[in-house]
Amino acid sequence: MKVLLNEFITDVSGFVASGISAGLKKSGKKDLGVLYSTTPAVCAATMTTNKSKAAPIYLCMENMESDYIQAIVVNSGNANACTGQEGMDNAYIMAAETAASLNISKESVLVASTGVIGVQLDMDKIIPGIRKACHELSDSGGKNMAQAILTTDTSIKTITVETSIGGRKVKISGIAKGSGMIHPNMATMLSFIVTNANISKAHLNELFKESVKDSYNMISVDGDTSTNDMAVILANGTAGNPPVEERKEYTRAFREALDYVNKELAKMIAKDGEGATKFIEVSVNNAYTKEDGRIIARSVVSSNLVKAAMFGSDANWGRILCAVGYANAECDISKVDISFTNGIGTEQVVKNGIPLDFSEENAKKILCESNIRIVIDLKNGDYNATAWGCDLTYDYVRINGEYRS
Amino acid sequence: MKVLLNEFITDVSGFVASGISAGLKKSGKKDLGVLYSTTPAVCAATMTTNKSKAAPIYLCMENMESDYIQAIVVNSGNANACTGQEGMDNAYIMAAETAASLNISKESVLVASTGVIGVQLDMDKIIPGIRKACHELSDSGGKNMAQAILTTDTSIKTITVETSIGGRKVKISGIAKGSGMIHPNMATMLSFIVTNANISKAHLNELFKESVKDSYNMISVDGDTSTNDMAVILANGTAGNPPVEERKEYTRAFREALDYVNKELAKMIAKDGEGATKFIEVSVNNAYTKEDGRIIARSVVSSNLVKAAMFGSDANWGRILCAVGYANAECDISKVDISFTNGIGTEQVVKNGIPLDFSEENAKKILCESNIRIVIDLKNGDYNATAWGCDLTYDYVRINGEYRS
Repeated sequence: MKVLLNEFITDVSGFVASGISAGLKKSGKKDLGVLYSTTPAVCAATMTTNKSKAAPIYLCMENMESDYIQAIVVNSGNANACTGQEGMDNAYIMAAETAASLNISKESVLVASTGVIGVQLDMDKIIPGIRKACHELSDSGGKNMAQAILTTDTSIKTITVETSIGGRKVKISGIAKGSGMIHPNMATMLSFIVTNANISKAHLNELFKESVKDSYNMISVDGDTSTNDMAVILANGTAGNPPVEERKEYTRAFREALDYVNKELAKMIAKDGEGATKFIEVSVNNAYTKEDGRIIARSVVSSNLVKAAMFGSDANWGRILCAVGYANAECDISKVDISFTNGIGTEQVVKNGIPLDFSEENAKKILCESNIRIVIDLKNGDYNATAWGCDLTYDYVRINGEYRS
Repeated sequence: MKVLLNEFITDVSGFVASGISAGLKKSGKKDLGVLYSTTPAVCAATMTTNKSKAAPIYLCMENMESDYIQAIVVNSGNANACTGQEGMDNAYIMAAETAASLNISKESVLVASTGVIGVQLDMDKIIPGIRKACHELSDSGGKNMAQAILTTDTSIKTITVETSIGGRKVKISGIAKGSGMIHPNMATMLSFIVTNANISKAHLNELFKESVKDSYNMISVDGDTSTNDMAVILANGTAGNPPVEERKEYTRAFREALDYVNKELAKMIAKDGEGATKFIEVSVNNAYTKEDGRIIARSVVSSNLVKAAMFGSDANWGRILCAVGYANAECDISKVDISFTNGIGTEQVVKNGIPLDFSEENAKKILCESNIRIVIDLKNGDYNATAWGCDLTYDYVRINGEYRS
């Protein structure tokens, strides 16, 4: 597997995209994108578990029943959430307009929205926007679409890799938007992955769901789950590889590439957390089960006290041990080792659940860097998990405490 | 039931207490307290669910098996947590010293500690401190003990009520300490309640556990559960009332007084949250079940986004609806109404899951006050629950981001 720099989703065969300004964002920045697979693609997706779901989520849940998906239309600037029946109607209009412009069935279109909630979409801007975006679809439009899905993100998030399956080169590429808190509302995570791999819908679904557990589900910026969160993958088979499900080695190669793409996008989202000054990776090793490891890693990376300590470059092992202890997972706390590590060095601060007489000076040096890895060795079992997040800063409070208007 | 102002735990018959400076706190403030029931008392308690438990928690879990508890010894300034076998030994020495000074069995003593973690107790200060505190026990020592259990709390937390059971006056009084984050570690909640009611251990246990669910378990300052959290009640029967369990009306009267004491102490803890500028009450009405209501209320009061919005006096209904939606509870989000209310007025902002065209000006006036009530009417069922918390402020980040040393 290799990472392809300066490639975008539209460098994957059979996919075209566009990103335009429909006028939804006051700033005039790009706010509407369309992704189109020139041949029907199989699709897998995970949607928000929030009971307060935005209108497009309901539409997508319905259209995911289709055998193939051929297009995704996304707008930023308005989340079409908490908008009642009118919002549902507008989501269906977005799908229908896209389908009409592309001459495909409306059931093969997914819709995503991100932005302000509780406000109806301005369809007088959306409809011409969709037509324009469909008109501008091209194999160089990937970067434009990556820009069009952003809200308060400080940069585009994109990654492309190539692997080999049965002698054929297969690409997987993705774009994402992250944890920009937008007035008046919450972070929405959107991730759109495309691949030209030949893979069955069932196998894609299985691999994608598993991959999401160790990537997007392992990041935490503020612990709140949005009404609009969505991660989608389209596979159009144009690479001409033998079906991924045919051999274990094909699955291994595809999985490796897919996991890499999802984890890199997830990390980009965590790094771009609102007001964040530091990127924090929490590695939990040797848990009783994979799920125990995930729960503990998320508990630590989500703790306000740990996040504030990282902001202050404070080797506050006690808060970490505490977050391990209150995680809803099996764990023998008396065996836990904790270290801080990065390019500067490594400092172990806890051994067997008891603090060591560690070098505060060395720990401080490590924690003053903008990338910090907290390694928690549970010594309980054989499973590892990693979570990613950021520090809790004055800016987080400022950004999220500011009045919406 | 009436509230008795200017009364303390030692104004309840049969209880004496003291609070002294043993030299554990560098500031020279009081840091060691003893509570003593002159007759053996039945006891109920809830302890932290954190798997990383401090040494005194293990001792208390053991001694709670005793039929009677007669004394509680508490130190602040050092949590005796993450201290291994030496910490366990020291907790047992604290109980034994107290028992010897009071001439009672060491199994009838509970021990609590709060403060810095990962550091061994200075027993050269603790032992003479216990002897001094036992020597100074008096029926006017309640306030001193309330002071001795504090860490970074800005004020003592105490409440006393009187009710009538079978024609006899019965008092319930409590002291607590809250969410002061202390270097290097986390908030510990301690609550000690005394009553002269005549009540069986089993009945006391049942009523206390239920009361804790709607009081201490419904407050959130930063979502982290400490290694040392403990709530205890002692009942010594000196009021001479007929047993509370004898009649439903007795139980009702006792429960009302007990719930009041626990809720008031819980609210005092939430109000004194570190760096807090606002006290937030979240009332969830008409949930499917009591537990659904509790989970949703806690979800909202714990949301960083809601807390930051309250700090900014922002009527950000979307974040509230979102926190309702991601709570792990049953709820039909399409029926939810949300209002902000306090002495200034009331402003409904959401009806049936959709935002109203509300007065931003009026909402802002309400939210600029230091007491805010968020009322969430689920219109799903018949159960209500209330949670308490505080806003997320620059000072929270400053206090918790500061280096320990």
